[in-house]
Amino acid sequence: MNAPLPEHLLPEIRQRETPSALIDALKARFPDRCSTALVVREHHGRDESSFAAPPPDAVVFAESTADVADAVILAGKYHVPIIPFGVGTSLEGHLLAVQGGISVDVSRMNKVLSINAEDLTVTVQPGVTRKQLNEAVKSTGLFFPIDPGADATLGGMSATRASGTNAVRYGTMRENVLALEVVTASGQIIRTGTRAKKSSAGYDLTRLMVGSEGTLGVITEVTVKLYPLPEAISAAICSFPSIEAAVRTTIEVIQLGVPIARVELIDANTVRMVNTHSKLGLREEPMLLMEFHGSPNSVKEQAELVQELASGHGGNAFEWASTPEERTRLWTARHNAYFAAIQSKPGCRSISTDTCVPISRLADCLLESVAEADASGIPYFLVGHVGDGNFHFGYLIDPEKPQEREAAEALNHQLVNRALSLGGTCSGEHGIGLHKIDFLVLETGDGAVDMMRTIKRALDPKNIMNPGKIFTL
Amino acid sequence: MNAPLPEHLLPEIRQRETPSALIDALKARFPDRCSTALVVREHHGRDESSFAAPPPDAVVFAESTADVADAVILAGKYHVPIIPFGVGTSLEGHLLAVQGGISVDVSRMNKVLSINAEDLTVTVQPGVTRKQLNEAVKSTGLFFPIDPGADATLGGMSATRASGTNAVRYGTMRENVLALEVVTASGQIIRTGTRAKKSSAGYDLTRLMVGSEGTLGVITEVTVKLYPLPEAISAAICSFPSIEAAVRTTIEVIQLGVPIARVELIDANTVRMVNTHSKLGLREEPMLLMEFHGSPNSVKEQAELVQELASGHGGNAFEWASTPEERTRLWTARHNAYFAAIQSKPGCRSISTDTCVPISRLADCLLESVAEADASGIPYFLVGHVGDGNFHFGYLIDPEKPQEREAAEALNHQLVNRALSLGGTCSGEHGIGLHKIDFLVLETGDGAVDMMRTIKRALDPKNIMNPGKIFTL
Repeated sequence: MNAPLPEHLLPEIRQRETPSALIDALKARFPDRCSTALVVREHHGRDESSFAAPPPDAVVFAESTADVADAVILAGKYHVPIIPFGVGTSLEGHLLAVQGGISVDVSRMNKVLSINAEDLTVTVQPGVTRKQLNEAVKSTGLFFPIDPGADATLGGMSATRASGTNAVRYGTMRENVLALEVVTASGQIIRTGTRAKKSSAGYDLTRLMVGSEGTLGVITEVTVKLYPLPEAISAAICSFPSIEAAVRTTIEVIQLGVPIARVELIDANTVRMVNTHSKLGLREEPMLLMEFHGSPNSVKEQAELVQELASGHGGNAFEWASTPEERTRLWTARHNAYFAAIQSKPGCRSISTDTCVPISRLADCLLESVAEADASGIPYFLVGHVGDGNFHFGYLIDPEKPQEREAAEALNHQLVNRALSLGGTCSGEHGIGLHKIDFLVLETGDGAVDMMRTIKRALDPKNIMNPGKIFTL
Repeated sequence: MNAPLPEHLLPEIRQRETPSALIDALKARFPDRCSTALVVREHHGRDESSFAAPPPDAVVFAESTADVADAVILAGKYHVPIIPFGVGTSLEGHLLAVQGGISVDVSRMNKVLSINAEDLTVTVQPGVTRKQLNEAVKSTGLFFPIDPGADATLGGMSATRASGTNAVRYGTMRENVLALEVVTASGQIIRTGTRAKKSSAGYDLTRLMVGSEGTLGVITEVTVKLYPLPEAISAAICSFPSIEAAVRTTIEVIQLGVPIARVELIDANTVRMVNTHSKLGLREEPMLLMEFHGSPNSVKEQAELVQELASGHGGNAFEWASTPEERTRLWTARHNAYFAAIQSKPGCRSISTDTCVPISRLADCLLESVAEADASGIPYFLVGHVGDGNFHFGYLIDPEKPQEREAAEALNHQLVNRALSLGGTCSGEHGIGLHKIDFLVLETGDGAVDMMRTIKRALDPKNIMNPGKIFTL
């Protein structure tokens, strides 16, 4: 059972009705592609967050930008919300129809429109997922590095400014989206950006849209950067006597400017869960999973340097993998952490944290939070994109026990306060959605949130674009 | 003599008067730091662009964020424009008081506020220049790579989304600004962003401000990324039989993912001017200047690969430099190109282009534009950050001869049209200012510019923040 929304968010809920005239108009415009079936609506009214909200009143399956524009124009006529939907992997309640309205499912807009291998760019429809994209560009010798845990869509990844394990080297969606096509709140179709690598041409609308979580428009095309597949790739796992030792090693790696492609922390507890789940037989100690990309020499140099740094902190038992199969086996631990954790406590839900701090403060932030989590008695898993200063606790709670949820949220709150006091952010990569509306104000102050609200009101005067997310209006 | 503004920009000019009550109020608030002396106003009323406009009505020398906020609040009371001023190196008319108003000079806000070497970040006041910043962080073993031609301020570089020769490897101000403090149009002081390396916390106000050219607020603090000084640096120049050969080499370097730190084109004509100016004795052929950063091995690998690619296109006479002194000598050609060109035609002004195209279209764009420039008979210099697809023609015109200016602007217009048709942008790094207002509409279409206008009107309802720039309202 998902939890009801916190009380202060309730005023945002259900202020509006969807008139039947709108449903009729949508069914006329989209004869076979507008559903009001409860099962369809319920599927589109939830995501990976742990909040409960009523489902949307209808779901439109868009197959083109014109479809999206028409749905927005019709909804606007009746002042009814539009909630873009990709594959539903949001962790923060982005997809919940807290004010009712229409879910616009773009998963059928899943064409790779143009691969410009010579320019290292590709343009896709928003429903293309990251794995699909990598499959499509494989023959070009290029790849797209951004890899949130789920096989999310490029539209959703853009909307939440997603990242993942490769961000330490390749950046996030912020750095990798070159241009967008967007349907605005008035149903106009605009283009932001070009395929040029850099530009000083006016306001950076691309980056205003990236991370705007559907509140300023629906993304209908995405142009992103690609990268040459590295000549050599080498992966390694290394166990450490303590989380602190693993984190101190990471900090040194980053401060020395080693161009490491991935450096992920898994705590001992999570290694144990993964061993149980996937029979990996890994040492049940805090562990870094690393990957090095480059020329064979450069990969060797990086690996040697990192080994030296690790051994200075008691890191041992480096296990190396250079073939794709061996690498996949090593990365299984990281990829299965979430599922292994969930299965370790049947029926549980995970309350996920997402703070990100400057690298020098990572040990402080992480260690104090581990001590707090341990003291709470709530089981958790802990994984982190530690090279970026970003990590996730997943507090495993029994959704039937409100006191567990409260305790987990209290831990989250303490962690966010700590991260902010250390110069960090409440959200490294998941977005604000519903869950972090209060944290955003804590982080930026009222002035900056007011500026966001002013932009929102100006660009969406009817407040129909995914209302109730990021901030209350 | 600078040129009058084009006719379609005239409605933006001088619609407002600065009441003497405002001047009195500013003089009362800033007793020794508000000047109405003509020489001071004229100094603040021009930049490196070739437009003429009346000077601002007063200049306030701000020494703190509170000073800036008070100046904005007072100006707002009288609906009078505020034009932020750093060191006056804009190329596009950003500093011109086209609607009168108050120039707020932030050059005295030139403190480096905090160097966080462990996090590879630094926070500075907006009047700190890039060279001053690098001097300040030198002892930490870190550096700040963004290097527009002039020794611009970090505030100005942020406001124009500047870049330079290192952008091919290190990105532009878009990628390197982590956080800002901004005085808004209402005089409120807000913070955008944190020192965390990545964030998904709400709208990306940092990147909305970066490149907004003073039209949305005055930047009063800038936090940027720093990078470890490379273990090894090697620079080289290489001459080519044709511009095409140099450009084809560059394209291959980029497409192969060589992490080259700099790759600059200088055409034969410009080499000739530089030889005359600086007695360098360089081969008067098209030339690439390159720099490689990394470990000694990696630099060697990169250099060998690039040499191989270059020789495939007839590139020869590689001249290498590894010591700082030798590198400085090689880079003199690039750094002095502008001055050498200006001195080649006494009394001339340069009309500078700034297009940037996807790398695969660079040869097409550049070669056709060279042919056009040659056919026009107007002398020019040509330099380019070709690794990014960005290059600058400087058409050298006699400012007393309107027909030369018209011919140069016609060339510029043809070049912009060509770049846009190839998927590029009218401005790689100089910004829109006054000069490219029309080009921006050509590039993005009315819809996107309307969105910019809507944001501007919402955040600056009195239109006091550097009005008349980027777009007409």
